[in-house]
Amino acid sequence: MSQLKFRRLPKHIGIIPDGNRRWAVQNGLPKEAGYEKGLEPGLRLYEICKSIGIKELTFYGFTQDNTKRPSVQRIAFQQACIKAVNMFVNKDGSLLVIGDFYSPLFPPELIPYTKRRTFGNDAIRINFLVNYGWKWDLNHLTNYDSTSDNISTRNFLESIASADISRVDLIIRWGGRRRLSGFLPVQSIYADFYVVDELWPDFRPEHLYDALNWYETQDITLGG
Amino acid sequence: MSQLKFRRLPKHIGIIPDGNRRWAVQNGLPKEAGYEKGLEPGLRLYEICKSIGIKELTFYGFTQDNTKRPSVQRIAFQQACIKAVNMFVNKDGSLLVIGDFYSPLFPPELIPYTKRRTFGNDAIRINFLVNYGWKWDLNHLTNYDSTSDNISTRNFLESIASADISRVDLIIRWGGRRRLSGFLPVQSIYADFYVVDELWPDFRPEHLYDALNWYETQDITLGG
Repeated sequence: MSQLKFRRLPKHIGIIPDGNRRWAVQNGLPKEAGYEKGLEPGLRLYEICKSIGIKELTFYGFTQDNTKRPSVQRIAFQQACIKAVNMFVNKDGSLLVIGDFYSPLFPPELIPYTKRRTFGNDAIRINFLVNYGWKWDLNHLTNYDSTSDNISTRNFLESIASADISRVDLIIRWGGRRRLSGFLPVQSIYADFYVVDELWPDFRPEHLYDALNWYETQDITLGG
Repeated sequence: MSQLKFRRLPKHIGIIPDGNRRWAVQNGLPKEAGYEKGLEPGLRLYEICKSIGIKELTFYGFTQDNTKRPSVQRIAFQQACIKAVNMFVNKDGSLLVIGDFYSPLFPPELIPYTKRRTFGNDAIRINFLVNYGWKWDLNHLTNYDSTSDNISTRNFLESIASADISRVDLIIRWGGRRRLSGFLPVQSIYADFYVVDELWPDFRPEHLYDALNWYETQDITLGG
């Protein structure tokens, strides 16, 4: 399988699994039925990433902005996120859920994973953004004591709510839209952004291989 | 000119004028000679944007990360930024330069524009990011008093260094790279991102028209 040989892999891949509602509509289902169809693709993608040696994977679950949608949809994506996280319990990796867990919109079932937990072989970090908000994340900076020392990247990055999530090298977004929609703004500063036109429930491994092949052709300068 | 009829225009366009050094190399010039070739494209782009009714335009000048490059390059892009800003003095619009102006790397010639100044007809806001850093920008949040009131978007956005720059609707990046490279992370949260493969010194108006035609086909959800 030539597509599985990579010269240079991203350490950390961000996944924006967009298009569940559009997929449902295209398939004659109510919009909220689309989220459930996103579970199995997530597991397949994880298995491939683990097998090729990706070190960290962050899934965009739902955001605080998303919770303004009709409640039938909100309940459906909350339930899908609970199932998604539970799929990874007892699978190899260390699991972390990041989001505003003081809010009633955060599924209580996921509270145990708001501290990183390791299962089996610790080779890959799996992060889920659940009831995540970029404002919520950055707002933790307001508690940062800027007078105590010089602002180094290290201190700064340790002061946001998502401090346990590292810099993202590659973001792959399904569903054709070319925007970040608030996905980890600090970690995504220098991330390369790859868009798959197909909708997330139509995930195929080739999407990931194409993104990784493209990533190999990108230079990494970090502004230098 | 059919390409100048748009149903829906972005209010605010961010411009990442990348590829000056690659253009210089391709044309047998030293890398640092490329920046000067980016001036005239900026003026042409401004004239088109003004004529079609764009309300705000932000140019990515240089970042604090960029200043780590060889000094001959650094001096060249600093000089190009001084010339670029001066091109807009006395042209219609209100002009603002945003960046860390306490640093010796900030060109002193541009200090007068670190407060917004209006020339002629005030129809378009023109922002330049000069010695800008996303960390520098967000770091102003550490001075934000989160205890005084609830965190509303309004207060939050007023507390970053670039508070006078509004939300970006469309980012156009020349030079083929698909990343934000630290461009206004807060204002770019929901920006649609369009990449032109040609290098910035090879700017043609069609690049802008293509981006605007593409932008019309995008939905605006802001996560809802």
